[in-house]
Amino acid sequence: MPETLQFIPVAEAREPFFVGIDLGGTNIKFGVVDDRGRPMSWMTIPTEAERGPEDTAERMAAAVHRVIGEAGLTPQRIARVGLASAGPMDIPAGMITTPINLKGWHNAPIRDLVATSCGLPVTFENDANAAAYGEFWVGAGRDFPSLILLTLGTGIGCGIIFGDLVLRGEHSHGGESGHIILDFSPEARLCGCGRRGHLEAYASATAVIKRAKQLLESGRRSSLSDRIAGGKGLTPKLIAAEAEAGDELSLEIVLETAHYIGLGAVSLMHMLQPAGVFLGGAMTFGGHETALGRRFLEHVREEVQRLALPQVARATSIDFATLGGDAGFIGAAGVARLEWLQKQTGHY
Amino acid sequence: MPETLQFIPVAEAREPFFVGIDLGGTNIKFGVVDDRGRPMSWMTIPTEAERGPEDTAERMAAAVHRVIGEAGLTPQRIARVGLASAGPMDIPAGMITTPINLKGWHNAPIRDLVATSCGLPVTFENDANAAAYGEFWVGAGRDFPSLILLTLGTGIGCGIIFGDLVLRGEHSHGGESGHIILDFSPEARLCGCGRRGHLEAYASATAVIKRAKQLLESGRRSSLSDRIAGGKGLTPKLIAAEAEAGDELSLEIVLETAHYIGLGAVSLMHMLQPAGVFLGGAMTFGGHETALGRRFLEHVREEVQRLALPQVARATSIDFATLGGDAGFIGAAGVARLEWLQKQTGHY
Repeated sequence: MPETLQFIPVAEAREPFFVGIDLGGTNIKFGVVDDRGRPMSWMTIPTEAERGPEDTAERMAAAVHRVIGEAGLTPQRIARVGLASAGPMDIPAGMITTPINLKGWHNAPIRDLVATSCGLPVTFENDANAAAYGEFWVGAGRDFPSLILLTLGTGIGCGIIFGDLVLRGEHSHGGESGHIILDFSPEARLCGCGRRGHLEAYASATAVIKRAKQLLESGRRSSLSDRIAGGKGLTPKLIAAEAEAGDELSLEIVLETAHYIGLGAVSLMHMLQPAGVFLGGAMTFGGHETALGRRFLEHVREEVQRLALPQVARATSIDFATLGGDAGFIGAAGVARLEWLQKQTGHY
Repeated sequence: MPETLQFIPVAEAREPFFVGIDLGGTNIKFGVVDDRGRPMSWMTIPTEAERGPEDTAERMAAAVHRVIGEAGLTPQRIARVGLASAGPMDIPAGMITTPINLKGWHNAPIRDLVATSCGLPVTFENDANAAAYGEFWVGAGRDFPSLILLTLGTGIGCGIIFGDLVLRGEHSHGGESGHIILDFSPEARLCGCGRRGHLEAYASATAVIKRAKQLLESGRRSSLSDRIAGGKGLTPKLIAAEAEAGDELSLEIVLETAHYIGLGAVSLMHMLQPAGVFLGGAMTFGGHETALGRRFLEHVREEVQRLALPQVARATSIDFATLGGDAGFIGAAGVARLEWLQKQTGHY
């Protein structure tokens, strides 16, 4: 179990209990969480998606029962299971429809497969929304009435929470805010989705690597050139390391990324006026832990101050998320709890 | 009373009843609305903001009592009053803070002034949100679970409704979606707010006029040149008339506006995935009533199909709003009803 997670013993936990599952392309994370969002146990298994959704669902059920045991509980004491997954998905149908990172899972009815295997009711959610709900419930946004979580990774994920409501939109894909338009000109950068000018085409890890390559190819001097072989090995981590070691081009790339994130945040803020915008995912350049991460965040904030309407800029906190890779399963448990509450009370 | 509004007699109306007020810089509209959003009476008075908020509140109270009488009711039968106004505003405090179109109303506690004058409880709302709620309740979006209303006028207003929830954001300014960024380049058009590249800088009536002027000054031929004296008299209405009469430049301006609206709609759709995006306000180029309006709408739809993720484009209806200038007071009554329901049931 990860050292970052603090587990509470069952004697101190508050009922009801929930299991959260974060289904990724490589790994699946599981945890038992109490009514206050405090983790009681945790584990991870490889996804091995190529074995098919039925096989994975069987292994997920075994893992669910194992984390329940490790939390000192029996399945009878679990109120509900939350299952978070990347899309595209059909949330009401409980299906992953055309996943990119789960090959062969076309229209897999994963919610019901897991529910049947586990013998427990399952709530299904987009992983970006689940992570946002985790941060809202017990993470960086725990004191905020609303928030947007931008997850910076290979792509850019986005979850929007307003007053305990997960904003799902009508098509169950979760926030596609990575595809908001920053630049409509014909020369705008090409996005992975085939269209131009989207936030993801500027500020995802994929885009950062592409931008770095282009700068190096244009002849800019950088210690990055010595670290990579034929363009291979160029990652946001390497860029961060070189920036920290004093490489100017690397720092420029990091701060330019902050500029683009700031632009995206401003459009999101003008549209929705959340109390907080939080940055999570793998590409936070070290977060609060490093000087570079803090400088990155500071530059996002400066760009927001510069570009947003003053009353909106003043009233919105911009910060890093705090739950890291645990946001997904904690948030999945959180949305399971919301559905459980709704069923208990007839509303929420 | 306007011919477009169909009034229902009190015998056919369904209790409870609500009064909606749409406070604008020039006029104030009032109406009594039944529990199903059907208007029972209607009137308008001049705002005469220069007489101050207290004076206006007194006149508003008199008008409220008059429309109640005209609906065949007494004030005792009104459950609640809804008051919609342009921002900037502080909704929890019931105040208009620094209004542009109500000179001298700095920090006017208008909600409580109206409540005291009327002797009725008042719900306060941003006018863009109220109009969106009106369309959601009984207008173009009546069969939709969620919608975004873009109000095209001097500026661009925006209201966002998800499942009976008015998305207000945290700072009570209502949707500032007119200020989402379409273009981050240094040459991007200057917005009225002093920043660059915002939707409003491309697609508001103000922007349309500016773009038309620049095209004429660049030497483009157009029948518009014959219709205006020294640039005066150039309005979206005139541009629409010339476009309908066959002027190519005027048509180009209208379709280019559709392009920008499409771009803004795509960002909004990618962020929020509403079931519908509706276009209202004064600048709809005739709406469904004219060939030009229909062509404008068709081009917005084409741009959305071209620029949005296919699954999102497919699942979102793009259409004109239907309540016109009545959306504000009907929606204000609607949000008053929401607050009334909330107080009755302890939730909504």
